[in-house]
Amino acid sequence: MQEQQIFASIITIGDELLIGQTIDTNSAWMAQELNKIGVWVKRRIAVGDNREDIWRALDEESEHAQIILITGGLGPTADDITKPLLCDYFGGKMIMDEQVLEHVSAIFRKLNRPMIDRNMKQAEVPDVCTVLMNKRGTAPGMLFRKGDRIFVSMPGVPHEMKGLMHDEVLPLLQKELQMPFILHRTLLTAGVGESFLADKISDWETALPPHIKLAYLPNYGMVRLRLTANGTDRKHLSKELDELFAQLQQQVAEHMVINEDITLEEALGRLLLSKNQTMATAESCSGGYIAHLLTSIPGSSVYFKGTVVAYAYDVKEDVLGVQHQTLEEKGAVSEETVKEMLAGLLNTTSADYGIATSGVMGPGGGTHDKPVGTVWVAVGTREKAFAKKLHFRFDRLKNIELTAAHAMLLLYRFIKGDSLN
Amino acid sequence: MQEQQIFASIITIGDELLIGQTIDTNSAWMAQELNKIGVWVKRRIAVGDNREDIWRALDEESEHAQIILITGGLGPTADDITKPLLCDYFGGKMIMDEQVLEHVSAIFRKLNRPMIDRNMKQAEVPDVCTVLMNKRGTAPGMLFRKGDRIFVSMPGVPHEMKGLMHDEVLPLLQKELQMPFILHRTLLTAGVGESFLADKISDWETALPPHIKLAYLPNYGMVRLRLTANGTDRKHLSKELDELFAQLQQQVAEHMVINEDITLEEALGRLLLSKNQTMATAESCSGGYIAHLLTSIPGSSVYFKGTVVAYAYDVKEDVLGVQHQTLEEKGAVSEETVKEMLAGLLNTTSADYGIATSGVMGPGGGTHDKPVGTVWVAVGTREKAFAKKLHFRFDRLKNIELTAAHAMLLLYRFIKGDSLN
Repeated sequence: MQEQQIFASIITIGDELLIGQTIDTNSAWMAQELNKIGVWVKRRIAVGDNREDIWRALDEESEHAQIILITGGLGPTADDITKPLLCDYFGGKMIMDEQVLEHVSAIFRKLNRPMIDRNMKQAEVPDVCTVLMNKRGTAPGMLFRKGDRIFVSMPGVPHEMKGLMHDEVLPLLQKELQMPFILHRTLLTAGVGESFLADKISDWETALPPHIKLAYLPNYGMVRLRLTANGTDRKHLSKELDELFAQLQQQVAEHMVINEDITLEEALGRLLLSKNQTMATAESCSGGYIAHLLTSIPGSSVYFKGTVVAYAYDVKEDVLGVQHQTLEEKGAVSEETVKEMLAGLLNTTSADYGIATSGVMGPGGGTHDKPVGTVWVAVGTREKAFAKKLHFRFDRLKNIELTAAHAMLLLYRFIKGDSLN
Repeated sequence: MQEQQIFASIITIGDELLIGQTIDTNSAWMAQELNKIGVWVKRRIAVGDNREDIWRALDEESEHAQIILITGGLGPTADDITKPLLCDYFGGKMIMDEQVLEHVSAIFRKLNRPMIDRNMKQAEVPDVCTVLMNKRGTAPGMLFRKGDRIFVSMPGVPHEMKGLMHDEVLPLLQKELQMPFILHRTLLTAGVGESFLADKISDWETALPPHIKLAYLPNYGMVRLRLTANGTDRKHLSKELDELFAQLQQQVAEHMVINEDITLEEALGRLLLSKNQTMATAESCSGGYIAHLLTSIPGSSVYFKGTVVAYAYDVKEDVLGVQHQTLEEKGAVSEETVKEMLAGLLNTTSADYGIATSGVMGPGGGTHDKPVGTVWVAVGTREKAFAKKLHFRFDRLKNIELTAAHAMLLLYRFIKGDSLN
């Protein structure tokens, strides 16, 4: 299936990746962008700021892939050893690049900061590379060739790397290489497990042609199903994949929530936009995380009004108007409280729909009746509310994420008019 | 420096990692835990659900490291090929493990879900492995040995992997291996760049002994400095590191914010706890992200009262009491508006301190006067408020993160009584 495939390998450099101080989000983004132009990432490897380890990674990865993308290790400080190493590896010597020097100087003039020798050094590059201008920072990208292998070194700062990829690297790869296409179709299911789905569609899955693969991606108690196709005739491939995707949607219809590879917050936003309606949230246990997810979407101010994070009793009472008696008698984590929070929210704001959450996220605060992971969620309008009790059994952050995902799922289904039980 | 070092390599398996659908957070967590017991992660590698690639990764990584930790690829569905491959690699045959079968059956009984053949298969393991019981899920951990190499395979679901590491893997490694110690000391600086710091401390840094390394970790426009020491005599090493860390703190005193490896939200929480005071936030552009960061800390309900996310004008007016005239004349992104938001917040809640944010996060919404990235932040009490204008130049999510970090930094310094300009 993969004989005509162009493979890439991503090398990320930095001790901070190996001691767990930094989570690598660059590689996932790069993989998505490479996929779009038909390059398959075969391996991703992280190594420390160590000459021998980086050298060996360059040797090894060029055995695995035609394109080797390297991020990190290009900063101005002493723990950054990548640039001189690349110079040696490709047999060059360091020279000052006048264009980069002018660019770095301009950045410092603009910031009104003094430029020191260490900053000047950013403009030095191996004479065997093609310089890729980094508009967003001081460290330039560098392209090297060895036989038919292409190596690109970029800074690890995410927005600098992204700018270089979009402006320079991706256009260059598209121009030089004859690439097959990789296409994906993804849908989201909720309410059933991975094994159950797998069993349900096993005959269909077994009959898939070899160039089309199905993957099960469980997350937040929901399962995404992804079809991936690989081929050279884009039009034909797209049509074939659409037909199979339609079959898959039929097979899992009763469990399917969304038939696109978008997040729940995006799906909720689109649904509200399509109805020209708005929403707000009253969050206790989710602590503003639902608001954060919703406001991460550009343009969300059109349909998202706002949030009251009512962590303390007095905020629940004073801002949302929850009855003191309800909190005393039923407790903060109860059907009555989330319903009053929802009513108070819709009374306080002009939003059409609301979500209210209250629960015990842990690690402390659990009781026999309401153990850690107990959550009440209410969704609805001024006229109609629906509340549901949920149980999660993970750590604090995961419980918060699960609460947010399930609350958004519940409102999404409420607005769509789906069954909510 | 690293001759007595025990090295580990982490192999993560799954196509979802290579197409960018999943961000690998497991490896960072594993690296932190391994560091604590004196194991250094030398490499991290991600490969797809492909037999040849996994096999080769096992070969290669066992050349690099004594301990090879493998996550992912153990689910019940057809895209998971790791278990049979491991069985072949270590020359075993698959057998049913009765203890795992009983455990899996118990989980299904508890969930009240029917158990199908595919679930039964979870209890099959290679006869050449030691089974590590996974209390939190159905896929067991497996330990293999080849010469002096130790291989451990675990599921990729984060909380299952974490449980296995804590319950089984880390205690086992500590028992078997004579390990040197790795110690870290980290401080956070703000307001100056990496190069400036590097220049300031270059003499001191050059004089560091070879078993102690300094790293510069820039993030959110702030720079963390981390000292890492490596040795066999823990007590001696700790003392030596403390002395050097004290020197480092003196060198950068005027730029240092926190002398521990904790986040700003943790530092802010500890400071409030120590003063027995509380805070709340009024967030427009940060959209609840500050509330989310604060409420991610266990026990935050003691010092965190709540938040109003005032995304819409009417919420700013109705809930926070911002004057309509102020919004009309000065705009939502202005010193006057954030100060009124702050005052309204402290009027609405009983919190001692507040943060208010308003800005243009992008990609749309920028104007000539207030381009994307313009943010006003106010911090203070009922008696005294301080507002500051900030400029960021990144994408929406990064601008939100930067707003949150700088707003928390500002309140932290306000409470400490530091200079705020």
